[in-house]
This record gives sequence, C-alpha cells and structure tokens, in this order.
Amino acid sequence: MTTTNTRERIVDASAELFRLQGYNATGVKQIVTEAQAPFGSLYHFFPGGKEQLGAEAIRVSGKTYELLIPAVFDVAPDLATGVRMFFAGAAAHLIETDYADACPIATIALEVSSSSEPMREACADVFESWIAAGSERFDVERARELTIALIAALEGAFVLARALRSTEPLTIAGEMVAEAVERALSA
Amino acid sequence: MTTTNTRERIVDASAELFRLQGYNATGVKQIVTEAQAPFGSLYHFFPGGKEQLGAEAIRVSGKTYELLIPAVFDVAPDLATGVRMFFAGAAAHLIETDYADACPIATIALEVSSSSEPMREACADVFESWIAAGSERFDVERARELTIALIAALEGAFVLARALRSTEPLTIAGEMVAEAVERALSA
Repeated sequence: MTTTNTRERIVDASAELFRLQGYNATGVKQIVTEAQAPFGSLYHFFPGGKEQLGAEAIRVSGKTYELLIPAVFDVAPDLATGVRMFFAGAAAHLIETDYADACPIATIALEVSSSSEPMREACADVFESWIAAGSERFDVERARELTIALIAALEGAFVLARALRSTEPLTIAGEMVAEAVERALSA
Repeated sequence: MTTTNTRERIVDASAELFRLQGYNATGVKQIVTEAQAPFGSLYHFFPGGKEQLGAEAIRVSGKTYELLIPAVFDVAPDLATGVRMFFAGAAAHLIETDYADACPIATIALEVSSSSEPMREACADVFESWIAAGSERFDVERARELTIALIAALEGAFVLARALRSTEPLTIAGEMVAEAVERALSA
C-alpha cells in the first residue's frame, strides 16, 4: 500500500462522507476509519487539517461531477432533450440512493460559505468550472446564463426533493430550464 | 423574565444560528449563551434536546419567511414583476448581510434530510406550506408548478450566490422564472 493510495483514500472517503452527511457532521476519526488509514496520516498529508482536506475533497468531487455534463449532453439528440435527460438522471439517482446522494458540494457550500474562505473558494471554483463547461458546450445564445439557470434550478430542486422525498421538483425545474433553452434556440 | 420568554429566546436564537451557520456547526452551549438562558432550560423546554429544538426552529423560521410571499406579491403590479421583485429583494438582502443570510432552512434541509426524520419532516412541512401559499395566491395556470419552480430556482441561486459571492445567479434564476410566468399568463 503506497502513500499515494493512502492520500487518495483519505480524499475519496472525505468526499463521500461530505456529500452524504455534510462537512460539519463528519469527524476526522470517521474519515480515517472509512479510508482505512492511520490517524496521523491525515495530518501528514494535510497539515492544514480538516479544512485543507475539505477544500481538496470539494475540488476532486467537482471535477468528477463535471464529467456528467459531456456524458449526458454528448449523447443527447438536442440541447433541450439533454436538459430533460440531465434532470431525469438526477431524479433516478436520487431514488436509487434513497434521496441521499445529490450534489457533491451543495451541502458543504451552504455550510462553509460564511465560515471558511478556503472551502468557499474551492466551491466557487467548482461552480465556475461547471458554468464554463456548460457555456462552452451549449450551442445557443446566452449559453452562460442558461448554464447558470440550469445549475441553480438543479441545486434548488435537490434541496426540495431531498426534504420532500419526491422527484417532482426535479421534473418541474428541469422542464422550466428545457423550455427556456427551447425559447433561446428558436429566438 | 417569564419562562415563555426564555423558551421563545431559545427558539429564536437557534433559528438565527441555524440560518447563518447550519445545524451541525451550532452547539447547544452557543444557543443558550445567545439566548441568555440557563443551560438546563434548553432540556427543560425541549426534552428531546437539540433535534426537537431544531425541528421547532425550522417550523418557526418557515412561518416567518412565508410572510414574505404576501409582502412582495400583494404590492407587485403583476405576477411576473412580483417574481423579479422577490429575487431582487433576496439579492439586496444577501449583499446587506455579506452573503450570509439567505434561506432560513436550506442549510439544515441538506444537512438533516438523510439523518434526522423529525427535522426532515419539519423542512418538508415548511416547503409544502410555501408551495401552498404560492399556489393559492398566484392567479395563473399551473400555479403549483410555477411556485415549485420559483422556490427551486431561488434555493439553488442562493447556493451559487453565496459560494460565488455574486448576485448574478439570483438575477438569472429570477428572470427564468419570471419569463416562465409570463408564458403561462399569455398561454
């Protein structure tokens, strides 16, 4: 077992725990236990402790989830259908995970935006990278605005869907974005 | 100082702390200190401890914020303008509070949806009451869907706006909802 693997396991375990239960509910002991890593290794690899690890987990999760954009939109027959597929996929995954697994960074983003500048910046960088990825890919007028609208609608629909234990908010929010895209395409 | 006042102060202090820093980052010691209440009074009024207090703080915050719906839409010249005013008001308040004070329950909702059934139910009841308030008030076809779309867009825009320290997501999300309302009105 190499040290690289230990470091990766710590980041991966953190990303998963933060995604499912948030940052503040996750203790460093739980992270090293899940990562099957010695306790001291966390501070060896992350001298800045949980906050430094949090910022890195946010960036790693953000990069992974960014891949969902080409994964969906490159196979979609058109942009509006891609939007509907994106929200339908999110809804299906939410049901599969009993409404636990939604956005990897939204919970942390709300938890830390006013309390940790390094983690807020990591969240901001992830959101900016998603906005850039959509803006470049979507062949439509005002692609940046539509990408921001898509991410906002998706994030907020996740908040409602998880609390209500219903995918209805995802269907409704996705339809609103898809119709906005259709209007932009026909304008 | 009556016991009723002590109980109210505990709930109010909790609601404010949960709104600004989330549920898991808030300790019971901080709550009683902010409420200027004796430590034991928290467990006297809330035998179920922090979780019972959390559920009550969610419901109280939800009722207070629900009043924003008539406060904005009863004075708006029309529904689409009301939507734009609602998002503009949220953006102004976010700037005033240095991007700290957004939705009173979204952070808790994401934190507890998969870990505390009593608090998840409290969040669900609040969202349902907001959806009902908008559905009854908005004189438009598919009022319920548009209300859900509005709340989803607002909640998600808050996530982005707080992380990015920019009100742009609120402007974009608000415009998307306002245009959806305009389409529904002219249909």
